[in-house]
Amino acid sequence: MMNISDKELGEMEKGYRATMINSLPGFKCLQLVGTMSENGHSNLGIFNSIFHLGASPALLGMIFRPDSAHHDTLKNIERTGLYTFNNVTESFYQKAHQTSARYPSGCSEFVECGLTEFFIPEFEVPFVAESTVKIVLKLCEVIPIKANNTTMVIGEIAHILLSENLIGNDGYIDHQKAKTVTVAGLDAYFNADLVARLHYAKPNLEPSIMEKFKR
Amino acid sequence: MMNISDKELGEMEKGYRATMINSLPGFKCLQLVGTMSENGHSNLGIFNSIFHLGASPALLGMIFRPDSAHHDTLKNIERTGLYTFNNVTESFYQKAHQTSARYPSGCSEFVECGLTEFFIPEFEVPFVAESTVKIVLKLCEVIPIKANNTTMVIGEIAHILLSENLIGNDGYIDHQKAKTVTVAGLDAYFNADLVARLHYAKPNLEPSIMEKFKR
Repeated sequence: MMNISDKELGEMEKGYRATMINSLPGFKCLQLVGTMSENGHSNLGIFNSIFHLGASPALLGMIFRPDSAHHDTLKNIERTGLYTFNNVTESFYQKAHQTSARYPSGCSEFVECGLTEFFIPEFEVPFVAESTVKIVLKLCEVIPIKANNTTMVIGEIAHILLSENLIGNDGYIDHQKAKTVTVAGLDAYFNADLVARLHYAKPNLEPSIMEKFKR
Repeated sequence: MMNISDKELGEMEKGYRATMINSLPGFKCLQLVGTMSENGHSNLGIFNSIFHLGASPALLGMIFRPDSAHHDTLKNIERTGLYTFNNVTESFYQKAHQTSARYPSGCSEFVECGLTEFFIPEFEVPFVAESTVKIVLKLCEVIPIKANNTTMVIGEIAHILLSENLIGNDGYIDHQKAKTVTVAGLDAYFNADLVARLHYAKPNLEPSIMEKFKR
């Protein structure tokens, strides 16, 4: 076992430390975030600091870094109040990763990275056509985080678009069937392989596997 | 393609909706959080709303729900300022899931769920011995979220404990080698299988795979 103290962390070379800390907590929730600029230009960025906040109301959170390549995304969300989450699959993960490059403001990452815009009449905000699970969010709350000058953005789910065969009898969405990938660190992409779904845990009851959801 | 509007979401049966919304964003970062009570009792809870905030300072965030089975965890963190993150592997994911049961305050989930406490001299807070990546966090900031009465807790990484062979030349921590599992929704556990690591993305440069990190 190796012990790494906060002092040793502080003395690490900057890139080494960034790679280590980014990969430390394990697999993360990955989404392509679609927005629309003031001039009606589509914008797309990849984010991996996304988290569930609650089901009722249905809220998702995400973090923006002050030095992000995705400064246009936050500006567009604050201006229009609308954005989309689009899952990433193995068939286009390299194009999704490419959206993290620092394209000049006004360039559409859809065009630059070879992904396809998709719209529905109800919302003036772009989806990624290649994604198998698409979500529209309405801006709900913006919270500045003092600790490191990042910004937390909370959105309420306004619309979901996905194939019916991804939804189980109990509402469970099957991301292995959707071919959703996950990410560790900033650049390591993974497929996920079901171990099992477990029943709701109660004291004095042994953990147990749902029969229909085991490998 | 199936369209689900916010109106339809609002009309769903509560359990169905919770399962759908929890599984909607895909794979999530999973950690067992270890704390110590006022009376010196160990406490352990499973969390899946964990996210990277920054590498310098090294900060991780997590969300507490107001109705959580883990009310002791937040209380302990606020009292002691210390907590641990411990990854979950396939070898004990059922025990990890069992910590989500509502045990009475004062019960140790280590004992109830069959997991092993582990301490190092520098910190009075329990790790999970079975975990292959262990982190100590010092409380940094507590932020109340108005949108749904949840609480965001930010911690700074104070110590890391892991096997040296999990760390790559560039600082990358290999969670597939660590056998870390990921979760979708509240109860679906997955192993991760590397697709590839990609090089840092730049405009006018094609996405490319790191030779040492492809399947």
